[in-house]
Amino acid sequence: MKQTRPTHLRDLLIIKINSLFYIETQIIKALPKLVKKASNRDLKKDFEYRLKENKGQVKRLEQVFKLLDEKPKKVKVEAIRGLIKDAEWLIKNIKNPPALDAALIAISQYIEHYEIAGYGTAAEWAHLLGETEAAELLTQTLEEEEGADEKLNDLAITTINERALNE
Amino acid sequence: MKQTRPTHLRDLLIIKINSLFYIETQIIKALPKLVKKASNRDLKKDFEYRLKENKGQVKRLEQVFKLLDEKPKKVKVEAIRGLIKDAEWLIKNIKNPPALDAALIAISQYIEHYEIAGYGTAAEWAHLLGETEAAELLTQTLEEEEGADEKLNDLAITTINERALNE
Repeated sequence: MKQTRPTHLRDLLIIKINSLFYIETQIIKALPKLVKKASNRDLKKDFEYRLKENKGQVKRLEQVFKLLDEKPKKVKVEAIRGLIKDAEWLIKNIKNPPALDAALIAISQYIEHYEIAGYGTAAEWAHLLGETEAAELLTQTLEEEEGADEKLNDLAITTINERALNE
Repeated sequence: MKQTRPTHLRDLLIIKINSLFYIETQIIKALPKLVKKASNRDLKKDFEYRLKENKGQVKRLEQVFKLLDEKPKKVKVEAIRGLIKDAEWLIKNIKNPPALDAALIAISQYIEHYEIAGYGTAAEWAHLLGETEAAELLTQTLEEEEGADEKLNDLAITTINERALNE
């Protein structure tokens, strides 16, 4: 992230929105690999659904930029780059399909939780700054991320982990 | 992460435990900087408390290694390295102390959520593998991380964010 030096809550919110925008675009680039590598049909479908959902979340962030009278700036977030590198390592090294499915869920939950923390903070800051409409958009995405994490939990507990254990 | 090629759930659990061990040691290295840079007394105290808590979590992971009859292996987790790099960028670039406190909480919540996802997966896998004692230890840490995240939320909402808004 290279920017001018920020000092106040509004600046922090702008940095956060720019970071989330970068994070979403990185996830959108990475998700097709996960779709391709998932063996379980429900998991594959879930990743395909997330890809669509993420594109909607990018549109919401574009609305937030407009509401804040800002334009996206070029930032680089090291954490999401690291998360994706770790995912690539797993994809490369885990050859057993049921085990890879379990690992893909684990890495996706890392990413969902990362986004939950990010959108949680952004929504709270927007709310505090009186940016009610922006706060609502950010909360919508936050709720989607929480739902995505629960869905992954369900998939892990009901099917995927058992298969990784037995196959 | 450089290791032999894993295939099954037990191997995944070992990778996860090694990753968590690496993650904890990186956090223990990074936390003193956060203690030093926090201006708000309660936040400073909270970071000091987390440092002690993290050291206890490392001891728990050492017990888990013993229970699984394994020894820690050298792994590298890119995500936590990225999270810490992003934190360092914020510390370097945010000069206003109340804004920096708000940013430090945000980055800590990223880290807590990252650990919640990691320990959640590890506890579930250990449980499924019949490693009940290991699962219990991992669940204890998971609950501490959830508590830490709630505490940070409280601090943000009651004090820190308001100050970043007004000072």
